[in-house]
Amino acid sequence: MATAPLVALLSDFGVSDGYVGVMKGVILGIAPHTPLVDLTHEIPPQDVRAAAWVLHTSWRSFPEGSVFLCVVDPGVGSARHPIALQASGRYFVGPDNGLFSYPLAEVKDASDASGAADTRAVILDNPRYFPPAPSMTFHGRDIFAPAAGRLAAGVPFEELGQALAVDALARFAPPQPEWRANTLLAHVVHIDHFGNIVTDVRGPWARVVFTAPAPTLTIAGRRITARARTFAEGPADALFLYPDSSGHLAIAQRNGSAAAALALPPADIFAQTITISDIEPST
Amino acid sequence: MATAPLVALLSDFGVSDGYVGVMKGVILGIAPHTPLVDLTHEIPPQDVRAAAWVLHTSWRSFPEGSVFLCVVDPGVGSARHPIALQASGRYFVGPDNGLFSYPLAEVKDASDASGAADTRAVILDNPRYFPPAPSMTFHGRDIFAPAAGRLAAGVPFEELGQALAVDALARFAPPQPEWRANTLLAHVVHIDHFGNIVTDVRGPWARVVFTAPAPTLTIAGRRITARARTFAEGPADALFLYPDSSGHLAIAQRNGSAAAALALPPADIFAQTITISDIEPST
Amino acid sequence: MATAPLVALLSDFGVSDGYVGVMKGVILGIAPHTPLVDLTHEIPPQDVRAAAWVLHTSWRSFPEGSVFLCVVDPGVGSARHPIALQASGRYFVGPDNGLFSYPLAEVKDASDASGAADTRAVILDNPRYFPPAPSMTFHGRDIFAPAAGRLAAGVPFEELGQALAVDALARFAPPQPEWRANTLLAHVVHIDHFGNIVTDVRGPWARVVFTAPAPTLTIAGRRITARARTFAEGPADALFLYPDSSGHLAIAQRNGSAAAALALPPADIFAQTITISDIEPST
Repeated sequence: MATAPLVALLSDFGVSDGYVGVMKGVILGIAPHTPLVDLTHEIPPQDVRAAAWVLHTSWRSFPEGSVFLCVVDPGVGSARHPIALQASGRYFVGPDNGLFSYPLAEVKDASDASGAADTRAVILDNPRYFPPAPSMTFHGRDIFAPAAGRLAAGVPFEELGQALAVDALARFAPPQPEWRANTLLAHVVHIDHFGNIVTDVRGPWARVVFTAPAPTLTIAGRRITARARTFAEGPADALFLYPDSSGHLAIAQRNGSAAAALALPPADIFAQTITISDIEPST
Repeated sequence: MATAPLVALLSDFGVSDGYVGVMKGVILGIAPHTPLVDLTHEIPPQDVRAAAWVLHTSWRSFPEGSVFLCVVDPGVGSARHPIALQASGRYFVGPDNGLFSYPLAEVKDASDASGAADTRAVILDNPRYFPPAPSMTFHGRDIFAPAAGRLAAGVPFEELGQALAVDALARFAPPQPEWRANTLLAHVVHIDHFGNIVTDVRGPWARVVFTAPAPTLTIAGRRITARARTFAEGPADALFLYPDSSGHLAIAQRNGSAAAALALPPADIFAQTITISDIEPST
Repeated sequence: MATAPLVALLSDFGVSDGYVGVMKGVILGIAPHTPLVDLTHEIPPQDVRAAAWVLHTSWRSFPEGSVFLCVVDPGVGSARHPIALQASGRYFVGPDNGLFSYPLAEVKDASDASGAADTRAVILDNPRYFPPAPSMTFHGRDIFAPAAGRLAAGVPFEELGQALAVDALARFAPPQPEWRANTLLAHVVHIDHFGNIVTDVRGPWARVVFTAPAPTLTIAGRRITARARTFAEGPADALFLYPDSSGHLAIAQRNGSAAAALALPPADIFAQTITISDIEPST
């Protein structure tokens, strides 16, 4: 499928232990010279949704054939399946716990029959490829990294284990804003390294917010009316709205952190309901 | 020896300066396209034992022929030798200060004569490979990375410098639990990113703790009696014991941090003596 | 120009989002198997001078032909040019905002005519290589990573866009100490991961400080008279001066952090004027 079967890694392992390095050692032992890329290992412990978000905003930038090794796995050792998923020309390896909800949501939306045919899943249970007694707490090392390494080495997808119906995979519905009367109720989906606050308003609805004459967004009691296309164009002294690089409406503060400006702990920022008023419902 | 002479890097350099990148630039200048893997660079400054632990729990997952470039070096510029060690089919490069105590301990235990013959060390002093006036404070750049790069490029081990007796290498005795009366006295050897507390109880002794009818572990005045094979099976509201992925007995809290639950600074956690009672001495 | 066109990455993106991984995915989509090296992604947000410093202390350790992808870009989306610079046998890609001041300063100093001829710059504006509607906030993904990938793939430098006069590039004058009467006034240019405080005293002036019989450096009211070539030789209980690995005079505390010893916030440490007295002006 691809000329460069790189492996991209995503986890909540942090970088102070050797856990990530160990997974890479396993991959390179199976598929030497595979390019390895870290998405992030700083996902809050066991936060499947946060990991799913990073994957959502990343995978499209990688070439077809890329393998995404994703290990945020609160259920390690339990009955949840270790799986591999082939979708949109890439491979996704990890626990079946919702990590792949965003790429799966795209497949569901796709009207292209050929695309749907390209989507398939397997349980990682072929005894030939996995140890008979894997660690009960580190499937990243013993199950998932070996599977990613096999895919990088060219082992056919279907040989990794028995087929699993894509419809049966765990997934959550990506958050979406809702209309209530003439107000759009939106949610915080991510706070980035710069303190930019990303919302679930995207696509046509984001365009509505940007083209309305004078919309008002309210979060945590703060009214935000300024809009800008770039950080440099944002107002010097007020929070403003901008379309972020993943196509979502986001909140920024020029030369500063919007999240810090709200003076709330991150968990409380995520709990806010955002209201956007003085806009017309999207068609 | 190997088809993929990757270089794995371990240091206390952090990642906010360019120090780690510089070492990689040096390696790739000598051996282009060498796969590079970070173990961690977040070792507490100058903490040789913490670095040795990460190496201990990592190196076996890497293919034979791998080169481990380890730079935690409080004595940089002093009389301690810069060395390379060949052991268990891998190469280890760094200061002779105890960093390699765990792989050396395994060699010592090995009864296999061929294995022992495979163990050798050199001082990195071949003037052909090292600058005549290296930095006095950054041997990582001027001595160790060049040596790792040479090994990755296929330079024979013995050409790096004069032989050094393996028995003469600096090492510390890995911590071990001790029996006192019917109680096992154990030690904390690592606190991981998740707050799991890893002890020096391993192998047969770890099995004893897991098969005894009702053992009690005490740390910092906390009595721990629950045991589980996986995080998902652990009790919701109590610390529990589990066998970690390196084969050591460890202490966890489900959906949380065992270290945080003890409400002690990490240094104080490391200073605790752990007692394990109501078990039978191992045979 | 080179056999190993590696790409080294430097940014203020942090590692908790997928931003860095996305840039790598873009590069590998264009130039599979390009070795990728992180310098650091922990530059304080939008701190161009801090990034320039890390580049200054790093680039010489990388082989000729290396591509430095540097994205600290407060003006993203504004009129500042996205550029590529060829200098000293390496390529530098990023915004034209002073990031490349140090390599540019060296070019200016070079009396070697052939070296000067090797220095050239382009604006990244060839429509063939860049998207027609790049993100207004993530040129790292849409402009700079594609340019770095093209260079790694062997696209000739001049094809990336129209030539730009090197003299017209944004740059700042690297900080330099000044003589006032018999005192050298110096500045803090970097505080590293270990808390070592690096000054702008380098080269011949650094040698003057090290060869004077009894110089005194004062910073934040602290008088420092001890000097050492290595950390191990430094005094146990006092700050001391040492020549750091980039050739700059720096301040250290043995087995500790000089920055912490000053008990000042980093911003205040950077704001200090350092005085060095009891030395003779350099010839």
